[in-house]
Amino acid sequence: MNKKKIINDPVYGFVTIPSAFIFDLIQHPYLQRLRYIKQVSMTHLVYPGALHTRFQHVIGAMHLMCLAIDTLRGKGVLIRDEEEEAVLIAILLHDIGHGPFSHSLEHTLVEAVSHEMISSLLMDRLNAEFHGKLSLAITIFKDEYPRKFFHQLVSGQLDTDRMDYLNRDSFFTGVSEGVISFDRIIKMLHVKDDELVVEAKGIYSVEKFLIARRLMYWQVYLHKTVLAGEQMLIKILYRAKELSMQGTELFATKALQHFLRCKIDISNFLEDPMHLEWFTRLDDTDILSAIKEWVFAEDRILRMLCERLMKRDLLRTELRNEPYTEEEVGIVRQRVAEHLGITAEEATYFVYTQTISNSAYDSKHNNIKILNKYGDVQDIAEASDLSNLEALARRVQKFAIIYPKEIGFVEKLG
Amino acid sequence: MNKKKIINDPVYGFVTIPSAFIFDLIQHPYLQRLRYIKQVSMTHLVYPGALHTRFQHVIGAMHLMCLAIDTLRGKGVLIRDEEEEAVLIAILLHDIGHGPFSHSLEHTLVEAVSHEMISSLLMDRLNAEFHGKLSLAITIFKDEYPRKFFHQLVSGQLDTDRMDYLNRDSFFTGVSEGVISFDRIIKMLHVKDDELVVEAKGIYSVEKFLIARRLMYWQVYLHKTVLAGEQMLIKILYRAKELSMQGTELFATKALQHFLRCKIDISNFLEDPMHLEWFTRLDDTDILSAIKEWVFAEDRILRMLCERLMKRDLLRTELRNEPYTEEEVGIVRQRVAEHLGITAEEATYFVYTQTISNSAYDSKHNNIKILNKYGDVQDIAEASDLSNLEALARRVQKFAIIYPKEIGFVEKLG
Amino acid sequence: MNKKKIINDPVYGFVTIPSAFIFDLIQHPYLQRLRYIKQVSMTHLVYPGALHTRFQHVIGAMHLMCLAIDTLRGKGVLIRDEEEEAVLIAILLHDIGHGPFSHSLEHTLVEAVSHEMISSLLMDRLNAEFHGKLSLAITIFKDEYPRKFFHQLVSGQLDTDRMDYLNRDSFFTGVSEGVISFDRIIKMLHVKDDELVVEAKGIYSVEKFLIARRLMYWQVYLHKTVLAGEQMLIKILYRAKELSMQGTELFATKALQHFLRCKIDISNFLEDPMHLEWFTRLDDTDILSAIKEWVFAEDRILRMLCERLMKRDLLRTELRNEPYTEEEVGIVRQRVAEHLGITAEEATYFVYTQTISNSAYDSKHNNIKILNKYGDVQDIAEASDLSNLEALARRVQKFAIIYPKEIGFVEKLG
Amino acid sequence: MNKKKIINDPVYGFVTIPSAFIFDLIQHPYLQRLRYIKQVSMTHLVYPGALHTRFQHVIGAMHLMCLAIDTLRGKGVLIRDEEEEAVLIAILLHDIGHGPFSHSLEHTLVEAVSHEMISSLLMDRLNAEFHGKLSLAITIFKDEYPRKFFHQLVSGQLDTDRMDYLNRDSFFTGVSEGVISFDRIIKMLHVKDDELVVEAKGIYSVEKFLIARRLMYWQVYLHKTVLAGEQMLIKILYRAKELSMQGTELFATKALQHFLRCKIDISNFLEDPMHLEWFTRLDDTDILSAIKEWVFAEDRILRMLCERLMKRDLLRTELRNEPYTEEEVGIVRQRVAEHLGITAEEATYFVYTQTISNSAYDSKHNNIKILNKYGDVQDIAEASDLSNLEALARRVQKFAIIYPKEIGFVEKLG
Repeated sequence: MNKKKIINDPVYGFVTIPSAFIFDLIQHPYLQRLRYIKQVSMTHLVYPGALHTRFQHVIGAMHLMCLAIDTLRGKGVLIRDEEEEAVLIAILLHDIGHGPFSHSLEHTLVEAVSHEMISSLLMDRLNAEFHGKLSLAITIFKDEYPRKFFHQLVSGQLDTDRMDYLNRDSFFTGVSEGVISFDRIIKMLHVKDDELVVEAKGIYSVEKFLIARRLMYWQVYLHKTVLAGEQMLIKILYRAKELSMQGTELFATKALQHFLRCKIDISNFLEDPMHLEWFTRLDDTDILSAIKEWVFAEDRILRMLCERLMKRDLLRTELRNEPYTEEEVGIVRQRVAEHLGITAEEATYFVYTQTISNSAYDSKHNNIKILNKYGDVQDIAEASDLSNLEALARRVQKFAIIYPKEIGFVEKLG
Repeated sequence: MNKKKIINDPVYGFVTIPSAFIFDLIQHPYLQRLRYIKQVSMTHLVYPGALHTRFQHVIGAMHLMCLAIDTLRGKGVLIRDEEEEAVLIAILLHDIGHGPFSHSLEHTLVEAVSHEMISSLLMDRLNAEFHGKLSLAITIFKDEYPRKFFHQLVSGQLDTDRMDYLNRDSFFTGVSEGVISFDRIIKMLHVKDDELVVEAKGIYSVEKFLIARRLMYWQVYLHKTVLAGEQMLIKILYRAKELSMQGTELFATKALQHFLRCKIDISNFLEDPMHLEWFTRLDDTDILSAIKEWVFAEDRILRMLCERLMKRDLLRTELRNEPYTEEEVGIVRQRVAEHLGITAEEATYFVYTQTISNSAYDSKHNNIKILNKYGDVQDIAEASDLSNLEALARRVQKFAIIYPKEIGFVEKLG
Repeated sequence: MNKKKIINDPVYGFVTIPSAFIFDLIQHPYLQRLRYIKQVSMTHLVYPGALHTRFQHVIGAMHLMCLAIDTLRGKGVLIRDEEEEAVLIAILLHDIGHGPFSHSLEHTLVEAVSHEMISSLLMDRLNAEFHGKLSLAITIFKDEYPRKFFHQLVSGQLDTDRMDYLNRDSFFTGVSEGVISFDRIIKMLHVKDDELVVEAKGIYSVEKFLIARRLMYWQVYLHKTVLAGEQMLIKILYRAKELSMQGTELFATKALQHFLRCKIDISNFLEDPMHLEWFTRLDDTDILSAIKEWVFAEDRILRMLCERLMKRDLLRTELRNEPYTEEEVGIVRQRVAEHLGITAEEATYFVYTQTISNSAYDSKHNNIKILNKYGDVQDIAEASDLSNLEALARRVQKFAIIYPKEIGFVEKLG
Repeated sequence: MNKKKIINDPVYGFVTIPSAFIFDLIQHPYLQRLRYIKQVSMTHLVYPGALHTRFQHVIGAMHLMCLAIDTLRGKGVLIRDEEEEAVLIAILLHDIGHGPFSHSLEHTLVEAVSHEMISSLLMDRLNAEFHGKLSLAITIFKDEYPRKFFHQLVSGQLDTDRMDYLNRDSFFTGVSEGVISFDRIIKMLHVKDDELVVEAKGIYSVEKFLIARRLMYWQVYLHKTVLAGEQMLIKILYRAKELSMQGTELFATKALQHFLRCKIDISNFLEDPMHLEWFTRLDDTDILSAIKEWVFAEDRILRMLCERLMKRDLLRTELRNEPYTEEEVGIVRQRVAEHLGITAEEATYFVYTQTISNSAYDSKHNNIKILNKYGDVQDIAEASDLSNLEALARRVQKFAIIYPKEIGFVEKLG
């Protein structure tokens, strides 16, 4: 069998699967599951093209890793074949623990179990299944490998994860502001003392990368309608779980039932492998089909939320620079309760606040290092000729209130 | 409210919704449903990016129609505002009758009810709901309007439907062979005696369009693995329907249950509006979630098929130029029956033949007309300087056999 | 004859010539001359694709103007047909006064005669030739038309001139950092009190536009090797003019001879129309062919400079944050004089300093105005959520020294 | 010094110079000269973007060769480092013998000396200069190397020369019909018995490549206005040479004078190296500047031709399927003579016929070989499922007459 399989990727063209073992990993049900988990949750309600999946993303990030390794070797950085395969595996598996609708449901279906924790559990399981062949990849993933740059390529300010998702999200949303010159950045990567650095002439590309990231946050990830869609999703699941735990029978696949009927936290995952087993059965389909069916649920709150989501009759989001006070939120809830004929308690399912923040460059941790022409390493903020980086490093906070638009504009409520 | 809404489309950039009424139509649940119906069914199993939906497609086709109308007006073709809105509505609604997984399930969920029939029923319903505002659009859609070019733009050899789907499928699969110069073709359109024609200098673009179409057939629509995936889907639904009609209780949404439990043909649709009602509740999610859950079904055939599909352990397709004889198929089924430990009867769920054919240009009906520089109209086959068109008009037939690859290669069975 | 001519433009695809009169203008020798004047002078020595011309640029800027007019009309801004044609003519002719190698030779071939002055003279001449049909265009070009937004679209911080050149220079250099979402910015334009404004949701696109502009300055327009190439060109012309005025016979076309043999300033242009006549005969070819031939000149300085340029043996540029002192430059010239066997006086042809500066956004003049959702107009610096604009408005100065690399690095001369 | 220089190419992005020696070759004046020779002669008069040069083309073809070598090695084809560098040099130098305006002047400036002959002479000279380091490259270029696939990659039906020029010409003209999936074709290349073959699944990409080539011929290379422009250029040079040989003094650079004043054929090149020396001084600039200046020439014929070309007042081309008879041409010349007030003899400078032909696939020589899944090699015409290849292999001939449009349409002359 041909061991150099090729995948067609609309973003990069042809992607070559680099080895037979990696091909086997991709065929594994844990990876295949990612075909059914959208990369950016409900974003397609605003940007209809944004239906791309975690599967495409990890293949793309692996492809960029291949390019990065080639570049570094071309500059004389010594990378052994085992190291190469390990870092490719690490990036391929970095998102394996994502549940349906990615970030949206990390605190609803499970109790504060991050996808990174689950990724880690699943990697260990795969490592057992493949007789230890993932050990070095896991070491790199956990940042326990002495040659730091491998981990930095998997998870850092210039990792191939970010490069792929910015590029890919930009491609599928059609928001060209997010397009980055990934090939240029990769060509400028180098390694100094086993740390990842960027050659000085790549500085403008890195600046542009940081700026593109910031713009994508405001235009896509924190888009007002996207926020509303995701919050509605969360509230729907929350309500369904509440009802299920009280004994109400709701339509759901077996896997979803499992997570609706009891609270499951990290200790459960560690104690009983069955939880992880069920988790690997979950994808966006389980959630979406349930929501479609809950349009017929007995519970009026659940029904109303699901109906609105399916009809794309979304809540409205308003943003401002100061937090909404409890009193303000109370007034809005009261107004909504009257309008919808529900209790103020129930109105919490329709009115929520959220704090959103965005800083493109984290100058405190993992700062980006520039290699100047004399071979010295500088922080990018010092090397850059403009004070832009300060601005990009500054955290911007905004405060959102999300509510049904039938009641008019909140900011005019006074 | 801003009546000139803009949609971001990765293929064309910004798409402007041309009128407030069309915006209202797009908001209607019938149209919103198309957000959850993939344009190319199971193709994403081969081309992971191909997750785009009928919703994106109809918006895109409408956008191309706007461009075509602008071009024609710029050349002095008189088009009234009502005609413009009507042809935009006609293209927007042309696919509204598609069920889940588009073509794959037209003969499984329903009995020989084409999506065109259902489109027609739904348009009538919308027309009633909107007090007759769709009447002219429907007249154009049914080709009953005297100015033929409007219908030809909706449904003909150079309609904006084909232009959009070739372009879009090519974009999302990453198969650049299918990219067409839609802008060039549109700029070359003209109208002569109320028929759509192409200016002579656009002839190479039209040839390339036809060739691109042929290549997309072989590389995407009739790709061997795509064929296998779609046939598996059909057989799964077929088996599930068989079991349901025998009284087996299977996991399914209410809407899907409705179509699993009884045969529904066009007469049913015409007699009882409830069938159409349930139909408008169906999308890909209903099917996918059921298949995921049927992995746990009691029936072994159903279970095996679903498991294979979910794990992407797909059947193999072989193609040849002569049909497979009943005897040959019988031998393969026997082999599969032994291999899987099932009866020869049951093996029909795993071994199937299919005739596929492809002709890029139908010279018999709706031939493409070229307007030469003297103002005369010719068939493209006469105007073209190469005999390519003959080749493109020739129907190519191939014969497929689809079967589990565990039994080895069929062509070596002989 | 077809009055809706189409031009193929690699950047935008099809560009339609909007009227028969504009087609006639484009055919005029004054416009055709721009086919032989490169947009970015010697930049192709660094970016080999950057051979695009002023001709392509003005056609492109006119195309963007058409899009802008369409957008504004779509939003209800009243624009009369005469106004439309006038603003299209104004942008089409805005660069008509450029001489060979654009900016590089404005102070060498002529004495402080800017291309804007010459554009103005040529427009007047065309206006006479076309019996006053350009009067409104000239009024707009000179900012004497009461509806300010027309002039702002021709020349302002968001004019279609900048939009086209950033996009085009980015396209032909291959420096993807400069790509801007021109379609998005144009769709966000509006008019308030006859002034050009941008809708609030377009703010990120404008920010990105400003940032792209800044990056293009550093990566292309002020690229060190580009600076060196342009300075060499200037010095060559300067030397040739010096020699010519002393009576040396040099190979040159008649038009170039005219400008080599005597100093010509704006008063000469105004007094004798013959100067303008000769000017319209000059393009890049005159300069380049002379430089090729001057490789055989008797004067050693001229010969050396021309040889180096033709062989692409360019001078080196070093940049720093403080100016180079006269003493420092003196030392470098001395070193070069010794190395090349020339006098210190002659070494001024090989060693030069230059001050370069770059600010992406001029907040003092013509600031960009944002239209918020309540219909109020704000300066973009206030409306933007990040202090980026301050950084972009800050003028960055650098100081260059340009010299033959044979003498080693200047910064190490100490 | 960094030996891994990078060039920005708008077509492929970053191109890495593969070795220090190749970098030195690129710096050589023979290669730098190609910066001033346009790839497609006068095509920019029709497609304004088509100003790209032979320099860009050879860099691009070299880049594709790198990709091809990588692919073949990835499939286990053994390629030694010397072989790699040699084939890269061979493609880099394959066009080094092109004179100004490429093909247009091969029979005017010189007498039947093809650019291939001159390439060969210049390679020998470079080989001497670089002490034999080009010997293997020359062996491959001349097809004297036993491993045929190297030569086939340089010059064959699927060589990287064609792949680059189709792609590049398509990119810069904006004629998207010519875009080819070069990455896909390259990924499908393989070697069998030291011959270049294409894997079976690449067959559609190859078909599309052949079709794209045919379309580029009709839309660009044989475009009617392009033909007229090139013929005018040839006739101008022919007239200038005629005058020069009669003793008329014309403005021209020394290098151009050399070729205007005497007939130079291949024997001259072989006898006296000075001819080759002058040839390496010639580029498009010499021709263009002369034409600009000859607008003031005494000879009326020369003057008229040059004026028309500079003002883009081009001759008209008509095409038909039968040759024009001598009698017909005589009538046209007579008409033109009367119209322009010149003799019938002189009218031959304004009226010419030309036979043009185009076949996309040469099935007789160097046919394209397909490697099927059983490892057997077939001719593509047999392996393809459509009879398209027959059509593409058929040579299409057309007959052109080129003449001043003042006299009306020839086809109506009767």
